[in-house]
Amino acid sequence: MTEFKTWLELPPLNIDIHAQSAAEQRQQQLTKPSGSLGQLEDIAISLAAMQATAQPKIEQIQITVFAADHGIVAEGISAFPQAVTVEMVKNFSRGGAAISVLATQTNAHLEVFNMGTVSPIESLNGVHDHRIAAGTNNFLKTSAMTSSQCQQALLVGSEHIKQLKSKGVDLFIGGEMGIGNTTSATAIASALLKINPLELTGAGTGLNKTEILHKAAIIQQALNRHNGRLNLPLAILEHLGGFEIAALAGAYLCCAKVGLPVLVDGYISTVAALMAESLCAGSKKWFLYSHQSSELGHKIILNYLAAKPLLNIGMRLGEASGAAAAIPLIKLSCALHNSMATFAEAAVSEKT
Amino acid sequence: MTEFKTWLELPPLNIDIHAQSAAEQRQQQLTKPSGSLGQLEDIAISLAAMQATAQPKIEQIQITVFAADHGIVAEGISAFPQAVTVEMVKNFSRGGAAISVLATQTNAHLEVFNMGTVSPIESLNGVHDHRIAAGTNNFLKTSAMTSSQCQQALLVGSEHIKQLKSKGVDLFIGGEMGIGNTTSATAIASALLKINPLELTGAGTGLNKTEILHKAAIIQQALNRHNGRLNLPLAILEHLGGFEIAALAGAYLCCAKVGLPVLVDGYISTVAALMAESLCAGSKKWFLYSHQSSELGHKIILNYLAAKPLLNIGMRLGEASGAAAAIPLIKLSCALHNSMATFAEAAVSEKT
Repeated sequence: MTEFKTWLELPPLNIDIHAQSAAEQRQQQLTKPSGSLGQLEDIAISLAAMQATAQPKIEQIQITVFAADHGIVAEGISAFPQAVTVEMVKNFSRGGAAISVLATQTNAHLEVFNMGTVSPIESLNGVHDHRIAAGTNNFLKTSAMTSSQCQQALLVGSEHIKQLKSKGVDLFIGGEMGIGNTTSATAIASALLKINPLELTGAGTGLNKTEILHKAAIIQQALNRHNGRLNLPLAILEHLGGFEIAALAGAYLCCAKVGLPVLVDGYISTVAALMAESLCAGSKKWFLYSHQSSELGHKIILNYLAAKPLLNIGMRLGEASGAAAAIPLIKLSCALHNSMATFAEAAVSEKT
Repeated sequence: MTEFKTWLELPPLNIDIHAQSAAEQRQQQLTKPSGSLGQLEDIAISLAAMQATAQPKIEQIQITVFAADHGIVAEGISAFPQAVTVEMVKNFSRGGAAISVLATQTNAHLEVFNMGTVSPIESLNGVHDHRIAAGTNNFLKTSAMTSSQCQQALLVGSEHIKQLKSKGVDLFIGGEMGIGNTTSATAIASALLKINPLELTGAGTGLNKTEILHKAAIIQQALNRHNGRLNLPLAILEHLGGFEIAALAGAYLCCAKVGLPVLVDGYISTVAALMAESLCAGSKKWFLYSHQSSELGHKIILNYLAAKPLLNIGMRLGEASGAAAAIPLIKLSCALHNSMATFAEAAVSEKT
């Protein structure tokens, strides 16, 4: 536990402000009106700062989808049955899911971590068994997990990142799969930001208005039940979290500590990013944001993180799908930054 | 002229509503909550309707940048000198411009059409000489072009599309380069939509507030001068247009008539798309929209066309750069649509 606490408190790596400034200067010299590539300029400059080079590049991309089940589904808060978590893990492995297709198309390496599905899953290609328990407990009745389980999930995420960093991965994308996990994520965000769950609770996989009100009421009841025990971020994660959300938070934290750029996916992933920032301030310097989901609370949480996502095209699938869809923009951003001619090189006149 | 008028009035090809409906049904069966891929679903369904198949694909993409100069620059409406049009055509050819980099990265074929730069340009790789005149006339003083020049520019665009269609191109992207062309485009849009130029006039390549007011005033004066002669779209194009804008409009018109899907770029391209729709209603069924530019009037014109652009990342460069940046999303949309497993194929439970 002391070792864990020491690790948690280890500060994020600094980004390189000299490389950032060199990249900013380069953008001014490229043959285009200054600023006219918008966020494609910003992304290249941010990556330059993270990679400590004026000419950043993204070549080896890892997508890891963390899957787990949630005891809170007993309260009828999801439009899909719990069996879907396991079924989708199998679908990821066989290549039929959205993220499978997107990973292939974008040349990203996809792995799945089973953090705790209700049923065990037979050995599957690309799926790693890190099952902590048969889903979390129903957090309306008791704590979602024990301290030890929460720590275990965080460490699975962080150990994974250490390995990716040593393998030369230069962009990490985390995703999640878990029926019920927008309820857990919304409870966490409500507790961290002290926002009424009604303002954050959305349709998840497809609830109607009445069902959304029920979901928000369940979250509020859970916050009331655990009231007084939700003062620290780690306690919020333990009482209201999911194993996959904790693993994602651990992965993001470690990315900041070892200096691996993160491309954050949608609603649940952003809540995990918020948790990482809450556990260790400054972690978010290492985060880029891929998209704004159509899930109700996402915009509020993105604003809190001062995030400027690249896409806003009504996606709300999770699985890292929004981040994968933004991979080409990240690559184009680097290619433009590195390969465009300068005004001097191209003998193009500058602004009068 | 009769032949031209007959061609202009030829109706757009119909899209296939049976293929559209088959594609919609397929989207319902894929292993994801219905609608959760947002606009990536819409794009695949739209392309299915255009390509008359339930499983659309985009393999051969053409980007053509039309370049021309504008007499209106004499009124001091641009932040960059007129020489930049020719200089940038050379930069396109040598591979140093943003669109050169983007075309290479997205495997699109790039060509440049010189529709009328002030100076002739020596023979360059990838640049076709269709120079109508040494730029348009200053439309504050007289008509920007003659009827015959306007018709010639429209036909260059449409002939080009006929050739692309016969070569098997399955997505057309048009772009433009021309110092002064946001002024021409804004004048056209103001006349077509009967909107005060102040509401549409933006910074172009980088004007400050005072300069923007001057630009809007010049446009208003030009509209007053030509008042009474701007009742028909073709007359608006002739009096206020640019050769590259007319060529783009001709290309878009022809895409609709021969059935070639278009991915529209930014502000000026969208004005050319609006002109095409105004010249021949229903053309816009063949248009997809890549991005919302940060140029002031773009949102208004997109709304008028009921367009839902994919990106809104502060781009404002033109050259087809915004459309090129959206190419990967178009390809991913098709890949997801065609390659994801259905609920039945993957044995995943459906919504309860």
